[in-house]
Amino acid sequence: MDSPYQPLPGFRDFAPRDRLLSRYLFEAWTRVATRYGFSEYEAPILERAALYLKKSGGELSGQLFRFTDKGDRDVVLRPELTASLARIVADQQRDYAKPLKWFEIGRCFRYEKPQRGRLREFYQFNADIMGETSVGADAELIALSIDVMRELGFQPGEFVVRLSDREAWATFCRENGVAAGQLDAFLQIVDKIERDPEVKLRERLQAFGLELETIREFIASPDTSRSENLAAVLADLETRGLAQFAEIDLSIVRGLAYYTGVVFEVFDASKALRSVAGGGRYDSLISIITDGSTDLAATGYAMGDCVITELINETPQALAQFVAWRQRQATCDVYVIIADDSKRPEAIRLVNALRESGLGADYPLSPTKINKQFKGADQTLARFAIVVGSEYPELQLKNLNARTEESIAPNADPIEILKIRLTEPDGPLLT
Amino acid sequence: MDSPYQPLPGFRDFAPRDRLLSRYLFEAWTRVATRYGFSEYEAPILERAALYLKKSGGELSGQLFRFTDKGDRDVVLRPELTASLARIVADQQRDYAKPLKWFEIGRCFRYEKPQRGRLREFYQFNADIMGETSVGADAELIALSIDVMRELGFQPGEFVVRLSDREAWATFCRENGVAAGQLDAFLQIVDKIERDPEVKLRERLQAFGLELETIREFIASPDTSRSENLAAVLADLETRGLAQFAEIDLSIVRGLAYYTGVVFEVFDASKALRSVAGGGRYDSLISIITDGSTDLAATGYAMGDCVITELINETPQALAQFVAWRQRQATCDVYVIIADDSKRPEAIRLVNALRESGLGADYPLSPTKINKQFKGADQTLARFAIVVGSEYPELQLKNLNARTEESIAPNADPIEILKIRLTEPDGPLLT
Repeated sequence: MDSPYQPLPGFRDFAPRDRLLSRYLFEAWTRVATRYGFSEYEAPILERAALYLKKSGGELSGQLFRFTDKGDRDVVLRPELTASLARIVADQQRDYAKPLKWFEIGRCFRYEKPQRGRLREFYQFNADIMGETSVGADAELIALSIDVMRELGFQPGEFVVRLSDREAWATFCRENGVAAGQLDAFLQIVDKIERDPEVKLRERLQAFGLELETIREFIASPDTSRSENLAAVLADLETRGLAQFAEIDLSIVRGLAYYTGVVFEVFDASKALRSVAGGGRYDSLISIITDGSTDLAATGYAMGDCVITELINETPQALAQFVAWRQRQATCDVYVIIADDSKRPEAIRLVNALRESGLGADYPLSPTKINKQFKGADQTLARFAIVVGSEYPELQLKNLNARTEESIAPNADPIEILKIRLTEPDGPLLT
Repeated sequence: MDSPYQPLPGFRDFAPRDRLLSRYLFEAWTRVATRYGFSEYEAPILERAALYLKKSGGELSGQLFRFTDKGDRDVVLRPELTASLARIVADQQRDYAKPLKWFEIGRCFRYEKPQRGRLREFYQFNADIMGETSVGADAELIALSIDVMRELGFQPGEFVVRLSDREAWATFCRENGVAAGQLDAFLQIVDKIERDPEVKLRERLQAFGLELETIREFIASPDTSRSENLAAVLADLETRGLAQFAEIDLSIVRGLAYYTGVVFEVFDASKALRSVAGGGRYDSLISIITDGSTDLAATGYAMGDCVITELINETPQALAQFVAWRQRQATCDVYVIIADDSKRPEAIRLVNALRESGLGADYPLSPTKINKQFKGADQTLARFAIVVGSEYPELQLKNLNARTEESIAPNADPIEILKIRLTEPDGPLLT
């Protein structure tokens, strides 16, 4: 029986300490997207079921949170973002110069068995380029996928972006007698080539008159020999000094039917976890979603927060970077200690003045023993405390890290002094 | 018939230009909460229906997006945050020093008739203080509610926080023979005293043996005469220099049954719109939610994004502040123009170096006519463009606002020069 005091299975509560990792991810994602010139958008959480059924076909449709609303509409909690994005772009693209470079960080929902790296409610970072047919857009997104990993502290050799091209598979199919209408069904087999038992693979390939060896041989083709697109992407990454992070792997085809060209997935080097991010070109989707009324080439990238969280926790340098960041996340800059409660009004005025100067300030909301106040101050991670006591208007300024203190004379400006101290290192403890 | 290319009725698409107002609100909310020493948390979007039915009772239960999930659970999209917060706090409060000061910015869902200032999916900013019985917590939250309005550019006289106290009404009921168990039903009448027709009010009051005049007389009581709590809150606001923004109005009781003490609502001065924010003390709710296992006093505040958006649009100075902010939201710092496409690799290397230095940089992803590139650069709102042309390694740096330009010699560092120019005013256009 589910506990009524816990979140639903596969859902998470983020109390402030847990929320810090989300914040860390969101900030890193936003920083990289912004450096790459992407603008933020957001879609509704709830959409018409038809929008997502039209697009995702197979796997996702069995995992939808789907219901009928009070207005008798068949609706779903979005399982991912791309169909909503395609809908918005079709509606509003006239107002924006092409190509569109849009990003989003939001929640998605899939009814799956909760497990390591896979939950029912998760955050997803999406970056998409629309209105650009050139492979330069694919390279730009793949470079972004590499820089997201580097921004999070992952080192060369700790992750790899595996590149593939569905056009290469389309050519393979033409040359091997697989009908164009059978491409998706065929790629479903390729998608599982590393996971399904050989007997099963051979049996399924027989329907296409193909041997497993033919597929394996194609996948083992020399780099870029099967795809001009991939040759161009690798050359672009080489120019950026990022080619070391990428490798061609034609076994990557991505599960969803709507991909049309270059596709890619980001893995940890050991491949111990499922892919941590992925994406690819979907030149037909916007047209499909809009029944042909808008036709815009597009390529997209998405990273969820679940697998990357696992990976950060397992990777020493990436984890150390997060921990160092977390230690700097004080809930305020200064905690005002009220050592003599008859001076409470003076203390509140000081708190107010600190806040109006732009600093974060906290204080005890009711009379509190002084050692409990210092404990409260410690828990905020504030570097400084100002003590308002019986000697007011003289104040004591304490550096809570260095355990040093100084007096602030009645005629001095405590805010100016504090602002200077905030720019200085902690002193004794740092030397 | 709903259009399949539009969001569901009462839901919104935020294309990048529309998203800027959300981002502006989120940043202002976060800044004020952070200055006040609040830490961010987040709850799930989906919760057990029982959690919200237990708490909200009347009005909200008719507005729930409620369904049965694939695991046969009775679930709802959260209509507001407080029940989820109470659940999380009950589960995790042992790990945090009291009082807890937590804030959240997230989406909520109510199936209402979409209208001005009221939508089915909206953002809500919540700030709550838990584990503090003193009226100092009420004053702190009310001060925060005032500073949120000031942060958004509202001036004295443009808004007012109306304060009331449910304890004063409890005393009124005791003195006027209304049974304690009838308090909520009685307050539902008071809640509508400015909206319901007099005949209806008199009829409903008759059931309590009360005259409308008795109620009106009580509401007209001299300030603070009916409530020590309100006297203390006003004294605290006076200390902060914020008393001018508040007024006592006992007709404010808040619709929800769980409020127990000081309650407040923020209105535009003309009261032309429904309340723009509100809150109050709910000392029993955490105990009710947890069947008595956790008992923690609490007071909360919430502002949705719909009414405040209307109000910003109608208030010249607040609107001007947003517009000025929006004009500074370039999607990148610099746009790299590729005037000679044979220099594309050099241009991409420059873009990459600019990004690695922390700057936002964009460029044409495929060969593009130069005037179209300048149009693209203009639309990003970037202040600068760097032109990579046949004279490479010499570069041209253009200030797109001032329409000025300078050459960057082959041996100079374009990134260092750009970083200096970014700190300088635009020149000609500004003088």
